[in-house]
Amino acid sequence: MIKNLFITLEGVEGVGKSTNLGFISSYVRESGKEVLTTREPGGTAIAEKIRGLLLNHDEEALTADAELLLMFAARSQHLEHVIKPALAAGQWVVCDRFTDATFAYQGGGRNSPMKKIAWLENMVQKGLSPDLTILLDLPVEVGLKRAASRSEPDRFEVEKKLFFERVRATYLERAKADKNRFCMVDAMQDLSTVQRQIVKHLEGLL
Amino acid sequence: MIKNLFITLEGVEGVGKSTNLGFISSYVRESGKEVLTTREPGGTAIAEKIRGLLLNHDEEALTADAELLLMFAARSQHLEHVIKPALAAGQWVVCDRFTDATFAYQGGGRNSPMKKIAWLENMVQKGLSPDLTILLDLPVEVGLKRAASRSEPDRFEVEKKLFFERVRATYLERAKADKNRFCMVDAMQDLSTVQRQIVKHLEGLL
Repeated sequence: MIKNLFITLEGVEGVGKSTNLGFISSYVRESGKEVLTTREPGGTAIAEKIRGLLLNHDEEALTADAELLLMFAARSQHLEHVIKPALAAGQWVVCDRFTDATFAYQGGGRNSPMKKIAWLENMVQKGLSPDLTILLDLPVEVGLKRAASRSEPDRFEVEKKLFFERVRATYLERAKADKNRFCMVDAMQDLSTVQRQIVKHLEGLL
Repeated sequence: MIKNLFITLEGVEGVGKSTNLGFISSYVRESGKEVLTTREPGGTAIAEKIRGLLLNHDEEALTADAELLLMFAARSQHLEHVIKPALAAGQWVVCDRFTDATFAYQGGGRNSPMKKIAWLENMVQKGLSPDLTILLDLPVEVGLKRAASRSEPDRFEVEKKLFFERVRATYLERAKADKNRFCMVDAMQDLSTVQRQIVKHLEGLL
């Protein structure tokens, strides 16, 4: 019997993460597994409060360091109180964003040194990382247009196109460097094709 | 002319920090200096929100890592938005607790590795540290009795005596290791003696 897995879903704004998060969770659940669906930053009461500090427009700018430290503080709460207990109880965990997003947004996007992020990753995760990361990839312009038509822009969504180009490039580099963990899906394809590809990948695991 | 200084005040619960913080600020101000009085964790709108997460009783326990990361996230906001601008504008800064407290409480008290704290200190402070740290020292039992008679215990104050013994020991070690920066004052003495000793030290600087 295969062990329960920790699956993360990554990608820039407008790439279809929410839709596909629900799809993946349902698919795994219908295969008879118990599934916990969660998100970052957030996932616990305190981590969601930290998410509020990170995402809401505020009169006080966050320093690059504070942003990084808050991300990993929320992640520590999420890991110890939610993700690890769920994995220990045999559940599958499907998480909307994880540390790859910190490398992509804070590292690639905001130019925080990757070494700092890697040090914090090691401090907080102590070797635990996702078993599978599905990266939905899309040209930045297409993603931003999709995202713009949705809701109020948050602090990250008002950032410029160049920022998202760096985020996307970092995601792609990371996927290339760790092909065992990453499954990249071209999100320019129509939804049913995207989901067929996701299913194909999950079937191999289930 | 001497440069404006960054002064921190440290010590365990019940040692008389608040009273002496006001006294130091007034004394420096009456010497004709502009003074900013502030505190940690806190000192900016976001840092005070982080303080709320750190100090209030909560149904969700903070991990040791999250506690450390939140401390330094608040410190980064405080340094960049308050302390550094004040120092750059020629003001003296008098701060109730700073990184020595993180070493003492999270390192000594909670056994978080000192190396982790030193790494985060370097990440966030980038070489900036207080010019003078006044450590008010008191046997733990005396301090706890004084603190107990005051107000609602916060998350730290309900910790046990042994915890505060480790906190005090770490403060004392740090003061011994950096005698240039630290000025230790025996807080068992009556208040007027304590303040005479503080004045004596400040006069040398003013």
